[in-house]
Amino acid sequence: MRVELITVGTEILMGNIVNTNAAYLSEQCVGIGLSVLYETTVGDNEERMLDAIRRAISRVDIVILTGGLGPTPDDLTKEMVAKALGKELIEDAHSKEMIASYFQKRQKVTPNNWKQALIIEGCMVLDNHNGTAPGLIAEAENGVKCILLPGPPDELKPLFAEQVRPYLESLQEDHFYSKMVKICGVGESAVADRIGDLIEAQTNPTIATYAKIGQVHVRVTAMAKTPEEGERLLAPMMGELRKRFGDDIFTEEESVTLEETVVSMLREHGLTVSFAESCTGGMASARIVNVPGASDVLNASFVTYANEAKHKLIGVKKETLEKYGAVSPQTASEMAFGVAKAAHADIGVGITGIAGPDGGTPEKPVGLVYIGVAYGDDVAVIENHFSGNREKVRERSVNVALDLVRRALLVKKNS
Amino acid sequence: MRVELITVGTEILMGNIVNTNAAYLSEQCVGIGLSVLYETTVGDNEERMLDAIRRAISRVDIVILTGGLGPTPDDLTKEMVAKALGKELIEDAHSKEMIASYFQKRQKVTPNNWKQALIIEGCMVLDNHNGTAPGLIAEAENGVKCILLPGPPDELKPLFAEQVRPYLESLQEDHFYSKMVKICGVGESAVADRIGDLIEAQTNPTIATYAKIGQVHVRVTAMAKTPEEGERLLAPMMGELRKRFGDDIFTEEESVTLEETVVSMLREHGLTVSFAESCTGGMASARIVNVPGASDVLNASFVTYANEAKHKLIGVKKETLEKYGAVSPQTASEMAFGVAKAAHADIGVGITGIAGPDGGTPEKPVGLVYIGVAYGDDVAVIENHFSGNREKVRERSVNVALDLVRRALLVKKNS
Repeated sequence: MRVELITVGTEILMGNIVNTNAAYLSEQCVGIGLSVLYETTVGDNEERMLDAIRRAISRVDIVILTGGLGPTPDDLTKEMVAKALGKELIEDAHSKEMIASYFQKRQKVTPNNWKQALIIEGCMVLDNHNGTAPGLIAEAENGVKCILLPGPPDELKPLFAEQVRPYLESLQEDHFYSKMVKICGVGESAVADRIGDLIEAQTNPTIATYAKIGQVHVRVTAMAKTPEEGERLLAPMMGELRKRFGDDIFTEEESVTLEETVVSMLREHGLTVSFAESCTGGMASARIVNVPGASDVLNASFVTYANEAKHKLIGVKKETLEKYGAVSPQTASEMAFGVAKAAHADIGVGITGIAGPDGGTPEKPVGLVYIGVAYGDDVAVIENHFSGNREKVRERSVNVALDLVRRALLVKKNS
Repeated sequence: MRVELITVGTEILMGNIVNTNAAYLSEQCVGIGLSVLYETTVGDNEERMLDAIRRAISRVDIVILTGGLGPTPDDLTKEMVAKALGKELIEDAHSKEMIASYFQKRQKVTPNNWKQALIIEGCMVLDNHNGTAPGLIAEAENGVKCILLPGPPDELKPLFAEQVRPYLESLQEDHFYSKMVKICGVGESAVADRIGDLIEAQTNPTIATYAKIGQVHVRVTAMAKTPEEGERLLAPMMGELRKRFGDDIFTEEESVTLEETVVSMLREHGLTVSFAESCTGGMASARIVNVPGASDVLNASFVTYANEAKHKLIGVKKETLEKYGAVSPQTASEMAFGVAKAAHADIGVGITGIAGPDGGTPEKPVGLVYIGVAYGDDVAVIENHFSGNREKVRERSVNVALDLVRRALLVKKNS
């Protein structure tokens, strides 16, 4: 079934707040197999709101509106939906009671608030236990459902989860089932090239790629009547993707990040990691530490930005720095070994490069980053040429560093 | 002039990512006096995209589209805008060259990427220095401008700031002149309280507040015919804000971040800083290192996540850790002094706290973070109680840490 989300609120159009409600509702709807085809945001303006509602009713099966259910005169969502449906607003005794009891526990009710007890005639009322605006479900003549929900996320989310989601699930016959593969170490266009034939031939399941910094996420989605049928439709495509990308896939879990994969692999092997960061300045460590429970796998890291720090804190040789320079494979290698030793870690990672915008030379241009990973007596050093601004170069560096740790652990697993 | 924003991307409709681009563009447009009337999000679908573009062209003066300019076959924005305008796509030699030079420094260009050198005939091309998709400005027969921009925020934002914003400003007769004050160390509602009377009485200039993590930005905007008139209108309000917020204002520059303020103050005084980070895991150092030229003010930092690391690397006493715990004002203080010594820095910062979701106790709940700043023989330790998830607690911690360094330097300046 096709869904349109309409967010009502001038504060969104002014850029005062980010529309996280739309992201929440989209994810929820997609999760139960609905197709969200449009998201529209309009301000508190009668004409434009009415226009948006009428258009939505003409082109989807379910319209979900958030916001504009407040007590003030510029809250117009109910009024405009009623108008679009050719219905009246009537006072709902039950909602009035709910509002009265809400205010009993809090400040004085203002006359404005009784506006929130008005409902669209013939609609279904959804009690709001976290605020005074009830949710409403009203039906248009053509059968399209209009679902009106309050804007504050802490009212919207429980109302949706407890009452709207079960309602939507009950409307459907076919469901969507989707799986994800997240890929590291292959660029977006290269991924598209490798699966161009699959994308070209897609019907059910469908494939979509999403480019992230240093990663590509591929989503496979099947439409099916049952989870079993969904699984059956998804399995061959997932097998194909695994065959084509192999170890480049770092997870098949929707919510799992690269750093979470690395932390759980380290934990599985009972190993610790430590970073010596120059141009990334602590970002790699911070990514690991953002994973709850990171203390199992990381005790310490070093930001060794100056040459002096590289030498004194993690023992990079002065001769190495003089002969090859701070940005060199030799320095990256010594940083990796040195930090593992200084932090008593099993795996040491050294990151040194030129993030720009200044500091580049013809031999060592901006974007040149060496990343070394030392594990036992072995070290691998990768030379990278990243594009983009300072922040992007650094983010890409971190991504490659984390991926190299992952690959080092894969080698261990397979050996 | 009326604006519609069209965001293209199935990943938004799927709820995979939050539409922060729309918030950014709204804020920017409103800041230069444009009225954003609609925000529409559509997926990578020819028919619906075309429909949305045609409707936008019929109801506003400027259509800004983001996303769908990538190299893959499901990137359709250019194709659909060209269709809506009745124009052809042609290859642009200059853009092709830009793409070739982008890939020269990186991996091999794939045939897909040449698709990004196609432009709409007769359009204006905006060079993208952070990616391969150029921005385009094409005009419809009715005079409506269609502005096509890449989706990745780190490509979109510089392109908008450097090329689109001046273009949009040139379209207008009455101009908006705006100034910014960025405030640290005062919450959003406290800021609103302190300037409630100004907001209440606003006509020209107007005032808007934007809550950021750990910061509040206040924008003052005047409508005027000339820069001089704008300046004259803005000056009294700016004076009033300076009077009310004083040292809580860390910059009046639109583009200047807190870390840039801190780096330039340190440089001005010829001082260096070093961080000992526990729960933030390197984020504070990374923020400083993201400022070009950070090497003048930061030589080294330590991520001391484990107690052992706090003791061995930066000399926090074992008795302190045992008696008061790792999350205590005493530990924060010793971390600050210890890291200044270990890194030979003038200012040392220690950050230790409980970022959650686990590890909290009734006495030391999740969100409790101690931040110490040592400078010479003095140390200041602040106890913070942050709300939000692990990442938010850590970001707020970094913000306070940077602000404390700034305030320490202000004291020096004033003494």
